[in-house]
Amino acid sequence: MLGRVLNTHQQWLCRRLADLGHVVTRQMAIADDGREIQEAVAEALNRADLVITTGGLGPTSDDLTRELVAELLNRQLVRNAEVLAHIENFFAKRGRPRPPKTDVETMVPEGAVVFLNQTGTAPGLAMRVNADELAAWNGTAQHRPAASFRPPAARPKWLVMLPGPPRELRPMFDDAVVPLLQREFAAENFVCRTLRSTGIGESRVQELIETALQPCVQRGLGVGYCARPGAVDVRLTAAGAQAGPLVDEGEAVVQSILGVHIFGHDDEDLEEVVIGRLTKLNKSLALAESCTGGNLAHRLTNIPGASAVFLGGVVTYADAAKAALLGVRAETLRDHGAVSEAVAREMAAGARAKFGADFALAITGIAGPGGGTEQKPLGTVFIALASAEGVEVQRLLNPWDRITFKDVTATQALELLRRRLTT
Amino acid sequence: MLGRVLNTHQQWLCRRLADLGHVVTRQMAIADDGREIQEAVAEALNRADLVITTGGLGPTSDDLTRELVAELLNRQLVRNAEVLAHIENFFAKRGRPRPPKTDVETMVPEGAVVFLNQTGTAPGLAMRVNADELAAWNGTAQHRPAASFRPPAARPKWLVMLPGPPRELRPMFDDAVVPLLQREFAAENFVCRTLRSTGIGESRVQELIETALQPCVQRGLGVGYCARPGAVDVRLTAAGAQAGPLVDEGEAVVQSILGVHIFGHDDEDLEEVVIGRLTKLNKSLALAESCTGGNLAHRLTNIPGASAVFLGGVVTYADAAKAALLGVRAETLRDHGAVSEAVAREMAAGARAKFGADFALAITGIAGPGGGTEQKPLGTVFIALASAEGVEVQRLLNPWDRITFKDVTATQALELLRRRLTT
Repeated sequence: MLGRVLNTHQQWLCRRLADLGHVVTRQMAIADDGREIQEAVAEALNRADLVITTGGLGPTSDDLTRELVAELLNRQLVRNAEVLAHIENFFAKRGRPRPPKTDVETMVPEGAVVFLNQTGTAPGLAMRVNADELAAWNGTAQHRPAASFRPPAARPKWLVMLPGPPRELRPMFDDAVVPLLQREFAAENFVCRTLRSTGIGESRVQELIETALQPCVQRGLGVGYCARPGAVDVRLTAAGAQAGPLVDEGEAVVQSILGVHIFGHDDEDLEEVVIGRLTKLNKSLALAESCTGGNLAHRLTNIPGASAVFLGGVVTYADAAKAALLGVRAETLRDHGAVSEAVAREMAAGARAKFGADFALAITGIAGPGGGTEQKPLGTVFIALASAEGVEVQRLLNPWDRITFKDVTATQALELLRRRLTT
Repeated sequence: MLGRVLNTHQQWLCRRLADLGHVVTRQMAIADDGREIQEAVAEALNRADLVITTGGLGPTSDDLTRELVAELLNRQLVRNAEVLAHIENFFAKRGRPRPPKTDVETMVPEGAVVFLNQTGTAPGLAMRVNADELAAWNGTAQHRPAASFRPPAARPKWLVMLPGPPRELRPMFDDAVVPLLQREFAAENFVCRTLRSTGIGESRVQELIETALQPCVQRGLGVGYCARPGAVDVRLTAAGAQAGPLVDEGEAVVQSILGVHIFGHDDEDLEEVVIGRLTKLNKSLALAESCTGGNLAHRLTNIPGASAVFLGGVVTYADAAKAALLGVRAETLRDHGAVSEAVAREMAAGARAKFGADFALAITGIAGPGGGTEQKPLGTVFIALASAEGVEVQRLLNPWDRITFKDVTATQALELLRRRLTT
């Protein structure tokens, strides 16, 4: 993970673990080097009750983790018949012989729990580690002693090893690791709920709800905030017998204050909420994008099932295309300019007519880096929503860099439609 | 960084440092907790010659790094007049009074080098750290001793502290940290070049070039690979007086074997290369996307200056939209189905005509998760390129998850056009 790849595990695992009530105290990325790997695993086991490693379980020569951990804990690697059968079957289903290099994936440290890989070959592994095993390694002369040795805690330590590819790691974590954690680290009842809002900044959200939440906080409600471009999450947590009612009470407070700004819960994206509402109402959508350049169409079509309600869109970067494909009139372009309420209005109406859609969203604005004027500074944008009742237009200012501008503007357009669909 | 945010610093900094010839041996994310922060910084300084921290320099109550590091190294915080003037000026330019909470940002540990923040307020800081400072902390009773204390090396250790927001960190690294590294850790001449390829898998790339590169490797050439969906990077490095010619020789070998698969160098994206070629040739482009749902338009319009050559595109998810907006004939849709060579051909020709473009790319396929048949399994895709010479169609199979499918397919379409533009 120190190479050229973005580490998405950290965010994903921290989030999943937080939602289960576990606090991650340290995340580390190290080089594919034997000594570094053993040292890091030993340090982490000394430090924490649960250690999760990712990667290094595959069949190639730089997949070292399995062997190094077995050596570290002084355990033999033994052939696991269940894993062998699973891998044989994996290749049989694909009509290919099992490559001999996958042999190594069938070798499992003594006493390890095996998680079969539903989307690949390398199994995940989980081991209960006792203090003796670590002490032995901490004392060996060829390695530096680990940071600090903690005496064995009342509850056992666990080392969980997961394959690196996200599409293997993620289902394995949800299907196999979560039940293990629930069994081995059963905390008191923990409840976590995230309310997702849009259209208000992080500090304003905090200002608005902080005081009203105080009574809940005094009774143990945890409140966290996370801001991304165009959206702020409010995360409510509680533990213990009254956790459920306390989080419910907190949510009611937040809902009563932020109201329509709350678009969803937990992992729901705004595009998912909008596709869901359109599907439920059996209404269709078309788009006319200029400055967002396809960002909104791309995000909507990331949602499986979008095709049932999303008919399509037009990306009209050039003025001539606004005229040819959407029927925007030459006079309108000439008199008002491409970035104007009048053009947004005609783009939305044109897209709705061309696609035969119930709703159409149109966006025209100045993404930058060039193109701003005094009347229409960089970041000026017009968003129009056309429906059977006519066309509504918003003027907004999003003076961000090009990429953020596209993302925030597309979010604002989605939100305009979501509010129409919920009222 | 243990919260809900994706850690993009790790990849960005590791890459920049690698390109300068420095090896990152460990990356760590820790909680916003005083003891954790001091412990991690002390451990890192014991372990490495250069330590870079990110975040915790801002004006809010959870920005602890500046104070904790000063305490760790037993240095006083002193007001820095240059930083104060810079922050006053930052707010004056924006017509706002300087908020009193930014006072803390003007306080700097004794002896620190200050990097003024060109895009924000908190300055970056760099400190030459000597062994005594660390030894003092390592010995204090309230903290655990750090992993292992290394005697002071011949060259000094440096601690560099950068602000967290990427748009502040990145220019500061390039403008201020790179010169510091070049001065303080001047290595022998280091040359790094990345060749970016598409259309061949990672193991095949390696197989093709490995043997031919052996003579260069024996003379000190470093070869690394990095695969992302649809693209494989080959990274060539060398150090010493002959580094330049050696990397040139390696590049010539790779070019002679991978040839047309190489689309660019270093940080160049395929969409950037295509926009650049079109601009140079003064040719325009239009798109007709079905299964990629706007991904390709979105990627092209992320490139500043795209509007000079990219006229626009149509996202036709519904069959009716393919007919209404692109003039795809009802018989073609009926006889061949929406995912077919014939429809791809008519989509491309239609988009080229509607937008009046020199080139048009059209994509139709089955992104999944549903919709595959025996003749046209999940992941089947047709990509068409229309130009003055007619329409060329490729049939490909991309049996990946929906998001990867969209990305890989859009990359293949870009590559089809790039090759036309280079021959």
